[in-house]
Amino acid sequence: MGSKADKRQSAAAGEFGLIARFLAPLARGAPGAFGLRDDAAVLDVPPGFQIVVTKDALVEGVHFLPDDPPKLIAQKLLRVNLSDLAAKGARPIAYVMMLALPKRDDQFLSAFVRGLREDQGRMGLHLIGGDTVRMPGPMTLSATMFGLVPKGSMVLRSGARAGDLVMVTGSIGDAGMGLACLQNRARAMAAEDRRYLSRRYHVPEPRMAFGQAMRGLVHAAMDVSDGLAADLAKLCKASHVGAQLQLDQVPLSPALLRLAGKDPALRAAAIHAGDDYEILFTVPKARAAGVKALGVRLGVPVTAIGTIMNGRDVHILDAAGQRLHLPKGGFEHF
Amino acid sequence: MGSKADKRQSAAAGEFGLIARFLAPLARGAPGAFGLRDDAAVLDVPPGFQIVVTKDALVEGVHFLPDDPPKLIAQKLLRVNLSDLAAKGARPIAYVMMLALPKRDDQFLSAFVRGLREDQGRMGLHLIGGDTVRMPGPMTLSATMFGLVPKGSMVLRSGARAGDLVMVTGSIGDAGMGLACLQNRARAMAAEDRRYLSRRYHVPEPRMAFGQAMRGLVHAAMDVSDGLAADLAKLCKASHVGAQLQLDQVPLSPALLRLAGKDPALRAAAIHAGDDYEILFTVPKARAAGVKALGVRLGVPVTAIGTIMNGRDVHILDAAGQRLHLPKGGFEHF
Repeated sequence: MGSKADKRQSAAAGEFGLIARFLAPLARGAPGAFGLRDDAAVLDVPPGFQIVVTKDALVEGVHFLPDDPPKLIAQKLLRVNLSDLAAKGARPIAYVMMLALPKRDDQFLSAFVRGLREDQGRMGLHLIGGDTVRMPGPMTLSATMFGLVPKGSMVLRSGARAGDLVMVTGSIGDAGMGLACLQNRARAMAAEDRRYLSRRYHVPEPRMAFGQAMRGLVHAAMDVSDGLAADLAKLCKASHVGAQLQLDQVPLSPALLRLAGKDPALRAAAIHAGDDYEILFTVPKARAAGVKALGVRLGVPVTAIGTIMNGRDVHILDAAGQRLHLPKGGFEHF
Repeated sequence: MGSKADKRQSAAAGEFGLIARFLAPLARGAPGAFGLRDDAAVLDVPPGFQIVVTKDALVEGVHFLPDDPPKLIAQKLLRVNLSDLAAKGARPIAYVMMLALPKRDDQFLSAFVRGLREDQGRMGLHLIGGDTVRMPGPMTLSATMFGLVPKGSMVLRSGARAGDLVMVTGSIGDAGMGLACLQNRARAMAAEDRRYLSRRYHVPEPRMAFGQAMRGLVHAAMDVSDGLAADLAKLCKASHVGAQLQLDQVPLSPALLRLAGKDPALRAAAIHAGDDYEILFTVPKARAAGVKALGVRLGVPVTAIGTIMNGRDVHILDAAGQRLHLPKGGFEHF
């Protein structure tokens, strides 16, 4: 019966102490979190609203690099989840988190928690619970994030209709190239471009304000995390439609454009790179100008990149309107 | 930019296909799950209710054994979370799940999903979302589970008051001895006892009906997962009280009693064993008879095992009322 004896320590030094020291401060101000001293939290939902729930996990060596700064790992964990909420039009309110840690490393935890705290403050959300476990393997992190939408107003993947414009926020392919930089797989470039691209990989900027503002204007949306082309295919599949994507319209950052000038294949590669965390959405043509104006008002670039079509096929067209035959891509988890 | 190329496969064979084949059927009937085809789910909360959220993770080799039957691993994942909801007085409605899998193993997944489906049906809840990722390490599972309580009625750890009786459902120490059996660390016993104890380790029976019925009667509650003694200490700490625990009153199953007949130290060991998943609660003396009657009505044994005291100390007393000095124990995750 003593099989767990080897894992026993005084409660103060163990999970209890870790939670009290590092995690409980992240719950301060959340009435339903009970200071993380209970087994569960409560979430209040204002009348007329629904809770939107999303869950994304990060595994060391798969979704982040072992030597990534802990603060940036924390921010990535929150932001990949926030990006899902943004694309659904939800306002974030709280999250629970699983930390599966190979060992207790207080220096790591301090920096990690600093990253969480900063983003919590910026986004107006709190940690309200979770589980911290020992992991005889790579560090594994998971967050379940909660947002609010007025009842029935969550933006779905499945609402796209033939004739809609396909649009995307921000620029595409930066994070994929940033990862290539960090792994020394990228070609020579200016130090400033390298910094910009690496940062796009490390700390995505979920489009929270735009996501909430677009609710009611757009027909369908999802965040771009597995590559623009693959994610557009998923959106089309969920909506039972097809699409034409105009490769030359896909927005690239100045840094990526400078590289694509030397290697035109990068433009095609950009739509297969992952980790963009921009919002891909479809909108009836009549509302496109309004959505663009919204983008201007919120400082979020919004670009039309294609059209939703009848049928099931997603075609990628070049500047001349010719269909391109690109290898399939997109990040697949298995 | 092609770093993810090695992980790319056709969408049908990848995460998409895994979700469609194994997980989507578990979401059938949940209106807010969108067939697991979206990035998020919605949860509706009836007026006057709150959502109770809990999250527990299981790591292969830490929380379950590599050769445990997949169906039982699935049921354990749900039940450790259901046990938290039970102790909080909540009615389960839905969960999201992270699967971090070393490889895709369809035989494992089939059996695992069968376990989830059976328990979902029994408990009246649905899978509404999650994340499936590749794990270059031990299989890691995490569920965030949602329940409902009338507003303000979640049973807290922190409500115990001096004079309350300390009570517990079911019997204590079975799962710890069951693990010892499975690891061939237990002494000789009848095959039937071995089966009973192993099953108590593999498939806890969370006290859902009793948990919801006790709401409003009890002052404080938590589920016993890290050992009765350690969990009572946590409940006392959260409530700013002490307690006296009468070791000879701690309820043992007939199987464990037969073993304790040959080795009296097992009675003490039982209160340090983990994985009981019974409900530990405190109740004003005047309500004890009512709670016992409730237990009889629901077929749940309920036993008084001690008293909440002023102060902060948790003392363990023998049959003569003498204080025992037992080594500290309880499962600590770090």
